[in-house]
Amino acid sequence: MDALPHTGRAAALQVDGARLWRRLDALGAIGAVEGGGLHRLAYTEADRAARDWAEARMRALGMAIHVDAVGNLLGVRAGRERGPLVLMGSHLDTVAGGGRFDGALGVVAALEAAEVLTAAGVTTRRPLGVVVFANEEGVRFGSGLMGSRVLAGTLPLAEARALTDADGRAAGACIDALGLGGTDDLRPLAVHSYLELHVEQGPVLEAAGAVIGVVTGVPGLSWTEIRLRGEAGHAGGTPLHLRRDAAHAAAGVVRAVRRLAVAMGEPLRATAGALTLVPNQPNVIPGEARLTVDLRHPDDARLREAEARLEDAARQAAAEEGVAVSFHRRTRVSPVTFDDALVDRIEHAAGALGLPAMRLLSGGGHDAQAMAARCPSAMIFVPSRRGLSHHPDEYTAPEQVAAGASVLLRVLHRLAEE
Amino acid sequence: MDALPHTGRAAALQVDGARLWRRLDALGAIGAVEGGGLHRLAYTEADRAARDWAEARMRALGMAIHVDAVGNLLGVRAGRERGPLVLMGSHLDTVAGGGRFDGALGVVAALEAAEVLTAAGVTTRRPLGVVVFANEEGVRFGSGLMGSRVLAGTLPLAEARALTDADGRAAGACIDALGLGGTDDLRPLAVHSYLELHVEQGPVLEAAGAVIGVVTGVPGLSWTEIRLRGEAGHAGGTPLHLRRDAAHAAAGVVRAVRRLAVAMGEPLRATAGALTLVPNQPNVIPGEARLTVDLRHPDDARLREAEARLEDAARQAAAEEGVAVSFHRRTRVSPVTFDDALVDRIEHAAGALGLPAMRLLSGGGHDAQAMAARCPSAMIFVPSRRGLSHHPDEYTAPEQVAAGASVLLRVLHRLAEE
Repeated sequence: MDALPHTGRAAALQVDGARLWRRLDALGAIGAVEGGGLHRLAYTEADRAARDWAEARMRALGMAIHVDAVGNLLGVRAGRERGPLVLMGSHLDTVAGGGRFDGALGVVAALEAAEVLTAAGVTTRRPLGVVVFANEEGVRFGSGLMGSRVLAGTLPLAEARALTDADGRAAGACIDALGLGGTDDLRPLAVHSYLELHVEQGPVLEAAGAVIGVVTGVPGLSWTEIRLRGEAGHAGGTPLHLRRDAAHAAAGVVRAVRRLAVAMGEPLRATAGALTLVPNQPNVIPGEARLTVDLRHPDDARLREAEARLEDAARQAAAEEGVAVSFHRRTRVSPVTFDDALVDRIEHAAGALGLPAMRLLSGGGHDAQAMAARCPSAMIFVPSRRGLSHHPDEYTAPEQVAAGASVLLRVLHRLAEE
Repeated sequence: MDALPHTGRAAALQVDGARLWRRLDALGAIGAVEGGGLHRLAYTEADRAARDWAEARMRALGMAIHVDAVGNLLGVRAGRERGPLVLMGSHLDTVAGGGRFDGALGVVAALEAAEVLTAAGVTTRRPLGVVVFANEEGVRFGSGLMGSRVLAGTLPLAEARALTDADGRAAGACIDALGLGGTDDLRPLAVHSYLELHVEQGPVLEAAGAVIGVVTGVPGLSWTEIRLRGEAGHAGGTPLHLRRDAAHAAAGVVRAVRRLAVAMGEPLRATAGALTLVPNQPNVIPGEARLTVDLRHPDDARLREAEARLEDAARQAAAEEGVAVSFHRRTRVSPVTFDDALVDRIEHAAGALGLPAMRLLSGGGHDAQAMAARCPSAMIFVPSRRGLSHHPDEYTAPEQVAAGASVLLRVLHRLAEE
């Protein structure tokens, strides 16, 4: 028997695990590349195909469709009353060589929740929204959580559309060329709360034997692009003492990133994931190197300390090689602590459903952290096998998918009714 | 008065420095890119345009043209007698972002020598050849000195044509698509000796105040491609102890290359010039890294020692990170010692012309070292300002260019007459 009499029908509401899995399969075929993995970068044909798929599902569920100028897609399901909507969703863009669950799971589970309610003939008191945020990954335009930051009002629309990719193309031009943008302004939308189901993208839940991650917050995120400028020269003709080798300095920075992670310890995460040499030829001493270092920490002061120590280490590596160095902050997102009451609800829902749960910090950045600036927000995690994400082998088992969607449905239904 | 009575006319033969410079200007415009530097990779339209220019010059000088199936271009100037020809030349392909002198100088000076003889009405006893070797740099197909090794008979023709570039295109297909190949087989050609004028591509002559470098040999060259395979993962979600970061291991190899150079000392040259991460995104721990290490040493045993120490160091860097490593020898050229008699002649010619000269080893690999397997060969160097080469700012002063061409003309004329 259900504890909340005014949501007496909730006990009968159940997600359809097989349907969820079929929907993930359908999405997983969009942007799939030979040899495995997805290549569904933001604002590409594959991205559009995935969003078209989601829009078709929304229409099939009778939702009203809204699209804004950065391509955020919102489906609204009317409630018994007008007023702020309970929003749920995630994103459909992937990294290059990404997996089938990151982002897609949150969208599919949100659509599933709406479908369960529709099938049961339930009209909630508050309206519901399913949102597909644009360009969460930030791979292509150097800046993540783009759509959610625009919707949350923390990234000006014009600034977002002016971001350029490696070829110098503006995001706005790509959006317009693909017809991904709309004329709706979602920023004034009244939102009661935001919920997001996502795969963990780390090994913590699996290691602990938990099925539900109750996410308490998202660490702050900082991307520092480091440019090193030495002097190109012939690999055979230049003696050691005359070299100013940008690759040698860059390698020093990469090694320093690891030393920094060891020195400061968990929960700092520090990664040198991108490195480009110029001209990048075996017989030429690289005159130039660019690398981007990803730093994450739940404590903003410690994150700033890590940034400072990184720059010190890079300056030292550069100076030892007589190489010039410059720093460019590409992304900076402050740590976020999720809404206490929502976090409690998620934990209670998992308990009520008999699902082993644990509280944890998110390793990755998520749209929910952008939304937290705007409305009470929280996240539900489900395990990623071997902790793999941003990887073709990313996998969450069907019963884990269903468990996450069940918690989402339960929490959202209560939020929408009360 | 000339020391050799049977070449009495030689005293009157003089290169035209202004003409040499104009010709270098003309070639320097072919494949020039915005912001400076040349982009005239082997078997591209720019490469073809440069070779067309050289062929037109050969035809204007009345030479018979021969082209083989890898695109080596030979112009032959008849002698008073038949028999082995005295060959001179170099190459016209460049690295990406290369300079105007590397290769081009040797071709322009060889054409100038022929032009001076023609203008003076001199027909030498032996026939003369001017050769433009194909694909010397080896940037695009991973293997340098391609044309000269084919002509010298040390690289089978079919093997050369089957080499593929990064896009999987075969060299042979590129040659045929551009119409760069011919039907002549140059391998049976009787060659008396081979002379090559080239820029030093290093700072030694400039530092010593010498105008002419008398090259005694070319160090052995080895390119080792090192592939590192760890595991990709999310930069935020993967704790340190679970990482197998291919970039971290690759950076360890780059740093080890420097330690190796320091430990073994000169004349070893060791460079990590090319490094690629996969997927090369800021928020993904790189699952894969590939780098190519360029090693050079005039002593083959020491070169092998350097190769072995490099592999040991790479194995250790990989093992420390739990990353798999494999090695692929992309290029291996044994050290070459140039022909004693030719080296002496070059030194004497510089002395006779009053040009400050010094003996030195070549820092780079050159077509002359491939030709040394086939006939007596030697090289003349002129200074590179600040030692820069494979660089847009590569520069040799007009009077240095003229000095090098004068030594070439003098030596070649004597070789062709005696």
